Amino acid sequence: MFEAKLQKGVLLKKILDAIKELVNEASWECTSSGMSLQAMDTSHVSLVAVNLNSDGFGKFRCDRNMVLGMNLVNLSKILKCAGNDDTITIKAADSDDKIQLIFEAPNEYEVSQYEIKLMNLDAEYLGIPDTNYNVTVKMPATKFQRICRDLSQIGDAVTISCTKSGVEFRASGDLGNGSITLNQNSSIDKPEEEVTIAMQEPLTQTFALKYLNQFTKATPLCVQVSLSLSPDVPLVVEYKVMNEDKDDPDGDIGNIRYYLAPKIDDSE
Amino acid sequence: MFEAKLQKGVLLKKILDAIKELVNEASWECTSSGMSLQAMDTSHVSLVAVNLNSDGFGKFRCDRNMVLGMNLVNLSKILKCAGNDDTITIKAADSDDKIQLIFEAPNEYEVSQYEIKLMNLDAEYLGIPDTNYNVTVKMPATKFQRICRDLSQIGDAVTISCTKSGVEFRASGDLGNGSITLNQNSSIDKPEEEVTIAMQEPLTQTFALKYLNQFTKATPLCVQVSLSLSPDVPLVVEYKVMNEDKDDPDGDIGNIRYYLAPKIDDSE
Amino acid sequence: MFEAKLQKGVLLKKILDAIKELVNEASWECTSSGMSLQAMDTSHVSLVAVNLNSDGFGKFRCDRNMVLGMNLVNLSKILKCAGNDDTITIKAADSDDKIQLIFEAPNEYEVSQYEIKLMNLDAEYLGIPDTNYNVTVKMPATKFQRICRDLSQIGDAVTISCTKSGVEFRASGDLGNGSITLNQNSSIDKPEEEVTIAMQEPLTQTFALKYLNQFTKATPLCVQVSLSLSPDVPLVVEYKVMNEDKDDPDGDIGNIRYYLAPKIDDSE
Repeated sequence: MFEAKLQKGVLLKKILDAIKELVNEASWECTSSGMSLQAMDTSHVSLVAVNLNSDGFGKFRCDRNMVLGMNLVNLSKILKCAGNDDTITIKAADSDDKIQLIFEAPNEYEVSQYEIKLMNLDAEYLGIPDTNYNVTVKMPATKFQRICRDLSQIGDAVTISCTKSGVEFRASGDLGNGSITLNQNSSIDKPEEEVTIAMQEPLTQTFALKYLNQFTKATPLCVQVSLSLSPDVPLVVEYKVMNEDKDDPDGDIGNIRYYLAPKIDDSE
Repeated sequence: MFEAKLQKGVLLKKILDAIKELVNEASWECTSSGMSLQAMDTSHVSLVAVNLNSDGFGKFRCDRNMVLGMNLVNLSKILKCAGNDDTITIKAADSDDKIQLIFEAPNEYEVSQYEIKLMNLDAEYLGIPDTNYNVTVKMPATKFQRICRDLSQIGDAVTISCTKSGVEFRASGDLGNGSITLNQNSSIDKPEEEVTIAMQEPLTQTFALKYLNQFTKATPLCVQVSLSLSPDVPLVVEYKVMNEDKDDPDGDIGNIRYYLAPKIDDSE
Repeated sequence: MFEAKLQKGVLLKKILDAIKELVNEASWECTSSGMSLQAMDTSHVSLVAVNLNSDGFGKFRCDRNMVLGMNLVNLSKILKCAGNDDTITIKAADSDDKIQLIFEAPNEYEVSQYEIKLMNLDAEYLGIPDTNYNVTVKMPATKFQRICRDLSQIGDAVTISCTKSGVEFRASGDLGNGSITLNQNSSIDKPEEEVTIAMQEPLTQTFALKYLNQFTKATPLCVQVSLSLSPDVPLVVEYKVMNEDKDDPDGDIGNIRYYLAPKIDDSE
């Protein structure tokens, strides 16, 4: 028996919005410590990993480990039927081929119940090695989204250059070229607008904008995004899943991490 | 000579929005007691009836009964040219093949006049027998709209089950199945959120969602919708046309009623 | 060396939105007195002229006259990457085949730089004779936009009739016909809603709505539009480019003027 109740059901809606276009089918691993999901995107270039801690749920019960394979597009359709203020409960019996989703409105007069079928999916759980990244940039998530979208007007790839003073995003194409420079500004009044850079040495890498634009669909989940880079390892783009008010930096109940390998520059 | 002036012209815009996709051409019957329209939808499955009482108009004059046949899509296009605060006057001469629409802005500096041609349409006025319905459910119109839209994600038809305690809407399809249960709650603070059920005996019927979704285009007209059901007779979905503030329950000047026969369950 | 800095960069975004669908490629003429652009639309029926005075810029330096030919669709794409609160600086070296665009955010922590290639375009600078127009109508720009859009539902052309008391816009087509009459109202409280008519003698002319609808894309630039008409010369539709608060009537730093010849009525 698995049962997990999320007080702020809207979080699950946002998580699905953040991954369903990248990954159409995936398995949730449910253990006593929480729920997690890991999958390559449909073109097998990038990887997305979702982690939700059991203590972030209002109720969490997992009698034995379970793997819940499902079509994420269908799950997302069902979740669109939940109101933004509803609680969402996920239930799965040990021997069943379906899960139950229960949406409860705050007014107590309305309950919705949906059942969707489970799928048997080939497991492809990849071990992601713990890495000490050379550079970690934290910046407003909406700013990162805007930069990726803007530079997509110019070219297919963005070159990210990090120095102690700032980070530059650069693209070029038939139209011309463009660059956006953000300076470190950790001392400003509005913490949500902070740009902070932790680094060992300067680094420049290039990434396909097509994937970064997909990653930024997680923007509604939290105020700040973090980019971690090191030579020859994939970029990690991390969004925290915030249980409480999204301005509270300590209220995270999990995260979404996206991994994307840098492009190899043919000219080097 | 026919002349009818609606102080809140926006009501006529909303009425047309509520029927123009279901019915492309129809005749308005004008008598001294008001204007009415009745028509089958283009696939001849459902019926829509609009009634507007003469005393709901700021000015109403109808010297002799008239039938004004018109293309509702064209009428709707013209009405889109009226401002939401405009009064709308409809004028027809006894012997004319066109009607005149006059839109007057509250500022008195602007007047619009449109003429559209009338059509000769075959009359198909159906007598709708007065029925005592077994069940009448009143609920928020936006809630009914949302339920119909949500369950359309799941299946083509909704099964409505009414008991004294509540009403359940249920659908199933390839994805799985879903149900939404509303409990009676007549005593809550916000009358616009009330769900009330008047019934003689429990009843379960199934309807095509395609038509119900069309009916819910009348949602902007009023706060509450009423569903009336009885065995073996069509469902009636009724929206009142409210002249004043849409929160005033006594301000109706007419109504839109949609009729749809239940689906016959082959498995019974 | 050419350098021009616009404090309210959003103005340049709005100017491009107002012309880029009408004209795909055009040359900016830069002199010490300002920047200007003049071009026929792609179907060679209407003409658009933009004028920006040098003293409307925060910084303006033009060492020698330059002609900057560019693809306006591409320029508009780049300008979409500027924030609405950014300043925009345009720079061109004397001997270069590209221009530089610099967007600076008010927070000082973010700078974007774009370069786009210049084009060699055939010059087609048309002398527009100074005309004393018989009629000049000033009216709310949003009202003119709405009238053009509404009458496009009815027909392809609008007939504008001006008398001392008011101006009438009229169209007809298969659906029927429509007319909108605005009365002069120079004394009302809200100057932005004023309709004023300066005229020597009544005048009636007909214009293709397709082009007028294009012209109204300049509506976001200012509160009032002015229409100038005379027999046998093109209509001028003028929007001022307002540097400051768009309610300040004296803050213009230039204008956009559209020219369109009247249709010749075959029936006359």
